[in-house]
Amino acid sequence: MKIARYSYQGAIAFGIVDDDELVVLTSDPMFAGFDTTGDRVALADVKLLAPVIPRSKIVAVVSPEAFVLRPNTAVVGPGDAILLPAASDRVEVDGQLAIIIGKIAKNVSAADATGRVFGYTVATVVTAADLANVSATRAGAFDTFLPLGPIIETEFDEAATPLRGLINEEEFQAVDLGDDDRTTEDVVAALVSFASSVFTLLPGDVILAGAMDTPADVVDGDTVTMSIAGIGTLVNPVVRPA
Amino acid sequence: MKIARYSYQGAIAFGIVDDDELVVLTSDPMFAGFDTTGDRVALADVKLLAPVIPRSKIVAVVSPEAFVLRPNTAVVGPGDAILLPAASDRVEVDGQLAIIIGKIAKNVSAADATGRVFGYTVATVVTAADLANVSATRAGAFDTFLPLGPIIETEFDEAATPLRGLINEEEFQAVDLGDDDRTTEDVVAALVSFASSVFTLLPGDVILAGAMDTPADVVDGDTVTMSIAGIGTLVNPVVRPA
Repeated sequence: MKIARYSYQGAIAFGIVDDDELVVLTSDPMFAGFDTTGDRVALADVKLLAPVIPRSKIVAVVSPEAFVLRPNTAVVGPGDAILLPAASDRVEVDGQLAIIIGKIAKNVSAADATGRVFGYTVATVVTAADLANVSATRAGAFDTFLPLGPIIETEFDEAATPLRGLINEEEFQAVDLGDDDRTTEDVVAALVSFASSVFTLLPGDVILAGAMDTPADVVDGDTVTMSIAGIGTLVNPVVRPA
Repeated sequence: MKIARYSYQGAIAFGIVDDDELVVLTSDPMFAGFDTTGDRVALADVKLLAPVIPRSKIVAVVSPEAFVLRPNTAVVGPGDAILLPAASDRVEVDGQLAIIIGKIAKNVSAADATGRVFGYTVATVVTAADLANVSATRAGAFDTFLPLGPIIETEFDEAATPLRGLINEEEFQAVDLGDDDRTTEDVVAALVSFASSVFTLLPGDVILAGAMDTPADVVDGDTVTMSIAGIGTLVNPVVRPA
């Protein structure tokens, strides 16, 4: 099931994607379930928003035992601009699977971990590469540095995991999310289990599953297109503010 | 003015400290101002809680240009236990001034920065010292690793800034918050201005002003007492869960 968060006629709402329409939900399904209002709207008539705004944590995995946190003020949605900060001369992007937690989780085993996941979306992870040596946290913390979307896929299809990244028309990433030894579901389970050994995971928390391929630099005027086959395609322009 | 967040008869509320009583506020003064309900409760009858639960960011300053983020799930209040995690054999504590943002701030100058501050509280900053080399973020991210309190002081008294830390009866920190060259207010203004150059600061965001003195190790059964003269005293027991 694909869940969209969107604005329509001045209000923010949630809906289930049904071909080219949205079945409108009464509230945020992460907290309120999947009751529908009975209304439908055309996908073409809404503006899709970041499908989740985390209230507690965005965990960016760097290595199996190390991570940094990103602030929720970095999150933007489909079509929103990635703004190049004045403090950086080299900004790079990277596609990652974003795992969205749906149920509270503390010290969960890998076997129990995927049951705490609400769904998955695409993340374009932006980093000020020239600041990363000073502070990995700062390098990833700027406003607009975490586009998420276009929707949340609640059921993960192991067969539909190729991740593909384009800058303008040029492909720079094309990988499968699983690795040679483990399925994607195993990777997700290990990440959720590890994170829950450090802190209590809350609904809406996001875990960025880590870089799968080499990032690429972006400059003012570029367009970044990131897709995961079973989820969808996230497109964001890159802008250096005047 | 000293603002408390507390639980009383099963409900969470906010109040202004008036000697040994609280003047009850209608809502969170950070968002709703200082309207009072007309009620008063005795301080002795309430349980003080962490005076703020950040919804976006807790910025822990490491050096002038570097910081890590702590999760809001690490925040506990006065009297709450600091839980030693199984993953660590060496946990240390450190007293810091916590700056609480009250108004949205993006790219503010140092001159404008203190106008965005709601107030100040005491932080006992807990770190798994033996994990810090692997991941500074992970080392500070465990549940209960950020006691805050006992209250928020909205007006900072430059003369009342000595910070004093005890483990059990033994003093291990006794410093003034300002440094040789700058007043505390100047330090605060520089931190808020720098943080706002990276991301948008939101009401409720917390900036931990950085270590002022050498931390000390704690073990199961210790009691940590941290005070800043003009704010108050924060006491937390240390517990290794069975």
